[in-house]
Amino acid sequence: MSTEMIPHWLDKRAFLSPHETAIVFDGNTYSFQDIQQKARTLSSQLHAFGVQDGDHVAIYFKNSVEMVYLVHALTYLGAVGVLLNTRLTDKEVSFQVSDAECSHVVHDGDIPNIQDIPSTTKLISFNELSKLEPEPCSFYTELPQDKPYTILYTSGTTGSPKGVVLTYGNHWWSAVSSALNLGLTENDKWLAALPLFHVGGLSILMKSVIYGMPVYLLSSFDKERVHNAIMNEGVTMVSVVSVILNRLLDRLGEERYPEAFRCMLLGGGPAPKPLLEKAKAKEIPVFQTYGMTETSSQIVTLSPGDALKKLGSAGKALFPAQLSIQHEDREAGANEVGEITVKGPMVTEGYFKRPETNEETIKDGWLATGDLGYVDEEGFLYVVDRRKDLIISGGENIYPAEIESMLSGIDGVIEAGVIGKESSEWGEVPVAFIVGDRKADLNQDLVVKYCREKLAKYKVPKEIHFVDHLPRNASNKILRRELVHWLKQRRHME
Amino acid sequence: MSTEMIPHWLDKRAFLSPHETAIVFDGNTYSFQDIQQKARTLSSQLHAFGVQDGDHVAIYFKNSVEMVYLVHALTYLGAVGVLLNTRLTDKEVSFQVSDAECSHVVHDGDIPNIQDIPSTTKLISFNELSKLEPEPCSFYTELPQDKPYTILYTSGTTGSPKGVVLTYGNHWWSAVSSALNLGLTENDKWLAALPLFHVGGLSILMKSVIYGMPVYLLSSFDKERVHNAIMNEGVTMVSVVSVILNRLLDRLGEERYPEAFRCMLLGGGPAPKPLLEKAKAKEIPVFQTYGMTETSSQIVTLSPGDALKKLGSAGKALFPAQLSIQHEDREAGANEVGEITVKGPMVTEGYFKRPETNEETIKDGWLATGDLGYVDEEGFLYVVDRRKDLIISGGENIYPAEIESMLSGIDGVIEAGVIGKESSEWGEVPVAFIVGDRKADLNQDLVVKYCREKLAKYKVPKEIHFVDHLPRNASNKILRRELVHWLKQRRHME
Repeated sequence: MSTEMIPHWLDKRAFLSPHETAIVFDGNTYSFQDIQQKARTLSSQLHAFGVQDGDHVAIYFKNSVEMVYLVHALTYLGAVGVLLNTRLTDKEVSFQVSDAECSHVVHDGDIPNIQDIPSTTKLISFNELSKLEPEPCSFYTELPQDKPYTILYTSGTTGSPKGVVLTYGNHWWSAVSSALNLGLTENDKWLAALPLFHVGGLSILMKSVIYGMPVYLLSSFDKERVHNAIMNEGVTMVSVVSVILNRLLDRLGEERYPEAFRCMLLGGGPAPKPLLEKAKAKEIPVFQTYGMTETSSQIVTLSPGDALKKLGSAGKALFPAQLSIQHEDREAGANEVGEITVKGPMVTEGYFKRPETNEETIKDGWLATGDLGYVDEEGFLYVVDRRKDLIISGGENIYPAEIESMLSGIDGVIEAGVIGKESSEWGEVPVAFIVGDRKADLNQDLVVKYCREKLAKYKVPKEIHFVDHLPRNASNKILRRELVHWLKQRRHME
Repeated sequence: MSTEMIPHWLDKRAFLSPHETAIVFDGNTYSFQDIQQKARTLSSQLHAFGVQDGDHVAIYFKNSVEMVYLVHALTYLGAVGVLLNTRLTDKEVSFQVSDAECSHVVHDGDIPNIQDIPSTTKLISFNELSKLEPEPCSFYTELPQDKPYTILYTSGTTGSPKGVVLTYGNHWWSAVSSALNLGLTENDKWLAALPLFHVGGLSILMKSVIYGMPVYLLSSFDKERVHNAIMNEGVTMVSVVSVILNRLLDRLGEERYPEAFRCMLLGGGPAPKPLLEKAKAKEIPVFQTYGMTETSSQIVTLSPGDALKKLGSAGKALFPAQLSIQHEDREAGANEVGEITVKGPMVTEGYFKRPETNEETIKDGWLATGDLGYVDEEGFLYVVDRRKDLIISGGENIYPAEIESMLSGIDGVIEAGVIGKESSEWGEVPVAFIVGDRKADLNQDLVVKYCREKLAKYKVPKEIHFVDHLPRNASNKILRRELVHWLKQRRHME
């Protein structure tokens, strides 16, 4: 029997566990049957709106149960969802709608002013869509593994936005891999506070139907609501990024999470060590992960047994995935930094309409991630930084993340961002932006003194800028590119 | 990225969790790294013995850790394992070795007198093999999903033995499907008392490396040792067939299994209802399943939530599998009996060298199982019997399993087998063989009276034969074919 097809996952799940909870949102509970029925009706309405098999449908939604219906509705028609980031500017949204060749745009009522898109692109709000007379059409009853399902634009911390095409198979294997790694129990309930338009949020929806697991969905990250969900609502797994984890730890204070809470899945870039130590002190089961849109979410995760002895590592590649560090066209040795490359059934086959980039970055199924890292003697991955953010100073490699992690260990430092600045003497020198606690008595001398004790001289930031906040994208990753602009606009500190 | 390849599963597992327990056997504990090293060495020794990629290697072993090494060693070379049933006669073994075109036979020292096989077939004992100088060769580092891995002959309760070809993908998906259905926890430990030469046992080995789960391996079923493993050795899952479960229940008596014991996976044919009720009374989490060699083990399982309200059902098809009941070339309605057909990535692509049978039984990926069953309004499968064992009496269908199940509810009846006997009046009539407790005062009148109260008249056995045991195959399935021979040899009872 062919392994190319999987049964329609929502239909299958609604058949297996019709009355079990799929989504908890805004005080309401929705069963898998509820979601299935809404999604099926909606797909007939999408069909009435003109959506055909293979069409690209832009989805402009903040997290909501309607967005869940819509994401699943596409599967019945074989349409491809282009999930738009609602924090983008009008111009950025317009670019993505055009670039992804969307024939239709469905929004939640709060649509930006999209310009410069083909006049044939049809827009509709969810409200209008759900009033259309459903038009009967044939539904997919099996999902071909190699059929594109979603296009998500990369967050764009570097380079220009590109649409990552993910197939049903990519999403399926991502969910299966995660279960093989994290396990799967009857009591699991996953909290989704990350935007569903990012793969970190979207992947939770896929897990929900594939595992038969309830998702506790929030419209956006809210410290109190997340805290409450863990403490009182039976949530056992949460996906977070560093800045969110930090806020949750502060909120937790001297309390402890319930025994049943079993996984804080931490992604979105290298985590500062002080943060991990803080979490460890509060007995929080943090699973560091490494992943990206191109890998349908996590592809490397630190498993429970190794979490404490390998603090700072992102772990090992998930079961059906592979990892290799490439240095000057050869596999790097243990502890040797190189480019992280990954392979596996959850890895994208490419970016939409970017044949050259695809040829450059994906070879024999191996994706060159553009990230730098190394594996230790036992094969544990340590992500050091984005390759494009690497600072080269007097021939020495400086990884901004390393300095940021160190800076965030200073009392009173909330977060830090480090970039390179041109230097006639050294080529580049590191420069730091720091967000400090207002109550803390931070100053440049103190910071520099701290750095000199901890870092090689060439790594010590040559400028310290105290700021109110750092520029972050919708995934809460620091936009170092933006810091470069900030630097140009600033008068240098003495 | 292609979904055709999976990393070499033993290498991957030994990398992910080198020091965790893979196998507990005969008082010894073997880690994944232990198994990997032994399997790798053994594969180089197999290579020295002349085994090449694609060769068919017969394996004649009783359960042992050496058998585990061997099963995994084949994967490095790409050789196909033909797992021989050690309970077969010399003639049957010879047939399978010839039919499967085995170039090599590896045995555990206790090999039968194989005749009528090609003179080129090379035999070796494990002992001799493990003394050979390992010959370096290139190892598979990825396992192609569509590459054959094992050939297992069907247990042969009906028809002539045929070799079921199972690929790496079949075994992989079987393990994944089971995890999606039964869940996966850190504490899982699976007991294998079934022979590894059957798919029910073999599949546990695959789960072990894919999940990173310890297997408690027994050389054969032993009531005391299984009981002890559950009570005292942390075993949480056990695969059983009805007759084994029955013995375990008797052994358990008034005791109860520990809280952590979470799954008694019951396969190997329709289960008698009285047995299920007995298990229920003892609070044992029995998961009824339906599966066969052709489906790489379970493909339909009753999930925990439904176990009590659907007693007697085998459940619903596992996540990536599909089920359809076919009656006269159409899909049967709810509660209508027809042939069970299944589809999914764990279903074989066919029998070795049986193109006609393959064409007959596998259509568009749907395997016609030869079993009869129905699904209720909610889609739960009830297996009624083997199609070939169906008794037709005066135009009425009689399912032997139904009568057997009823008979086993009589006080003092240990087990029962029912077959059809030619009748000039009715075409066929049902005839029963009963194994009774020696202490019980069973007789024909009592049994017939009981049957008349419970069964339609045409279903009441027209003859009752009291016997010491029933003929069973190596999987403990009743060999009704053999009962037909017994009947011919017996003088009928009055």
